[in-house]
Amino acid sequence: MRAARLHAFGKAAEVLRVEEVPAPPPGPGELLVKMLAAPVNPADLNIIEGKYGELPDLPAVIGNEGVGRVVAVGGGVSGFAPGDLVLPMCRGTWTQNLLASARDAILLPAGLDVHQAAMLTVNPPSAWGLLQDFVKLNAGDWIVQNAANSAVGRSVIQIARARGGKTLNVVRRPELIDELRAIGADRVVLEDCDLRSQIGEFCDRRPCLGLNAVGGASALNLANALADEGTLVTYGAMGRQPLKIPNGLLIFRNLHFRGFWLNRWKEKSPAPAIKEMFSTLAGLVARGELVLPVHRVYPLTELVEAVEEAGRESRAGKVLLDLSA
Amino acid sequence: MRAARLHAFGKAAEVLRVEEVPAPPPGPGELLVKMLAAPVNPADLNIIEGKYGELPDLPAVIGNEGVGRVVAVGGGVSGFAPGDLVLPMCRGTWTQNLLASARDAILLPAGLDVHQAAMLTVNPPSAWGLLQDFVKLNAGDWIVQNAANSAVGRSVIQIARARGGKTLNVVRRPELIDELRAIGADRVVLEDCDLRSQIGEFCDRRPCLGLNAVGGASALNLANALADEGTLVTYGAMGRQPLKIPNGLLIFRNLHFRGFWLNRWKEKSPAPAIKEMFSTLAGLVARGELVLPVHRVYPLTELVEAVEEAGRESRAGKVLLDLSA
Repeated sequence: MRAARLHAFGKAAEVLRVEEVPAPPPGPGELLVKMLAAPVNPADLNIIEGKYGELPDLPAVIGNEGVGRVVAVGGGVSGFAPGDLVLPMCRGTWTQNLLASARDAILLPAGLDVHQAAMLTVNPPSAWGLLQDFVKLNAGDWIVQNAANSAVGRSVIQIARARGGKTLNVVRRPELIDELRAIGADRVVLEDCDLRSQIGEFCDRRPCLGLNAVGGASALNLANALADEGTLVTYGAMGRQPLKIPNGLLIFRNLHFRGFWLNRWKEKSPAPAIKEMFSTLAGLVARGELVLPVHRVYPLTELVEAVEEAGRESRAGKVLLDLSA
Repeated sequence: MRAARLHAFGKAAEVLRVEEVPAPPPGPGELLVKMLAAPVNPADLNIIEGKYGELPDLPAVIGNEGVGRVVAVGGGVSGFAPGDLVLPMCRGTWTQNLLASARDAILLPAGLDVHQAAMLTVNPPSAWGLLQDFVKLNAGDWIVQNAANSAVGRSVIQIARARGGKTLNVVRRPELIDELRAIGADRVVLEDCDLRSQIGEFCDRRPCLGLNAVGGASALNLANALADEGTLVTYGAMGRQPLKIPNGLLIFRNLHFRGFWLNRWKEKSPAPAIKEMFSTLAGLVARGELVLPVHRVYPLTELVEAVEEAGRESRAGKVLLDLSA
């Protein structure tokens, strides 16, 4: 049994090693999980480089999501049995053996696509929280978002669609237009489109919710598209520019500007709500209504290549680690 | 009976005239009010110059607040009698005779100071709405505001104090520090004070509500002072600069950015809530707990001088028109 361990912060080739790890029996309340697949997320890259808000004590097995099968069940655990497909819901997922708390783990339907399941813990819940917590969305309501091709953006498109909402999506590259329409985006426009003057051409009513992962001029473009009383939620800052909000959008149009952070959202969400969310998300995945693109799957032996590939702008989807071999 | 009538948009001396107006008997549901005093507000100056969002058809009697006494009561009106002190709650207050809707008019305690009552309709309700609608304030909670010397700012200080709240006030001129402390400001600091680094010196806990009438760097200074989850409400834009919001204040500190506009607030507030507010505000005025400074009182014959004086930055308080003579 092996795991990817970080020994220092720096370049992946110099600080990451695949090492043998023990497979201890699960203690009370624990599950021993044989991990099957885990993505290489931007947060992992930042941790490897030592540029993240919370850094682990080293050496550490990293990885912040993934999927596996229960191998053994500790004392006092009910609801799980060997062979169950689970999201372990803990850090340190780039491993073949994981001890997970049964209280936090999420049971998945047996036949769920393992690669899709591996990507279910971070980005789809962000989309879920963004759509759930800020505006009461009714069928036919529009949502406008930038960074629409990201895993969160694609999750927003598909989850909103499943709920009867409509999405206006802003992307930077024209080749993404057809790709996002194919997964259910109602409208896809390019970043240089002036939404203030053109919103009427795209939507039969103005969006009540805007989702911003870019900041700067792109965020203002979304805000200008919103209906009076609408809410712009910022959950990322890819453009590294602050929001610039004309006073009139606040005073006269009564827009709300809010923020979303998945860590905070998870902390404040009650466990039953989290379980219900994953049950719904797993249902969408099972029906093919929530699909995130996979760029390439690497075996654990090609760990460094996987991490380097995940850092390239050109990738089209998630880089996954196959932990089953 | 005379009134100040606007005949064109432009310089006060050229477009404002004091003219004889009739005193018609009140129709059903109306009050005939003999006006006593009315302020010259910034909105009036903007209307005279033709630079306001909603401009009246000309010629028009202008003025957007004031106080008077009921002279005659129309058919079907209950709750008002000749001699009552009232806020007519309509436009066109720079007149000696006003027909007001009894449904909208607010009855005041008989002995209330007429000059203070004349200023009760616009600025104190703004402060009330700002303190009421965004954050549930508990005793001991701090509010941070800029433009603290404005009529809204002073109202915030006094209304918050009456409710057990504490205010941290940002002003531009050092001579205002003692003046605002004298009306109950807990802390008064100058605009160049860096609240992010110094907030701990001023408040025993971080403010949960920020009130911004300036925009730009001043607004960001307030936002940086707020507690996590705090709300910054923008109700003015004196500095004519947009808000610039670092993404981290939204994502990680979960600040809320909102706007307030008195017109919208009045429209959506139910009549009983409005009446209860004025009852509370009148009580504060009667007890000397809500006092706004009067710069100078002009008779209607010196209308143009009054308007010109109201436009000068040097004034220290409201310019009032005495309509009783």
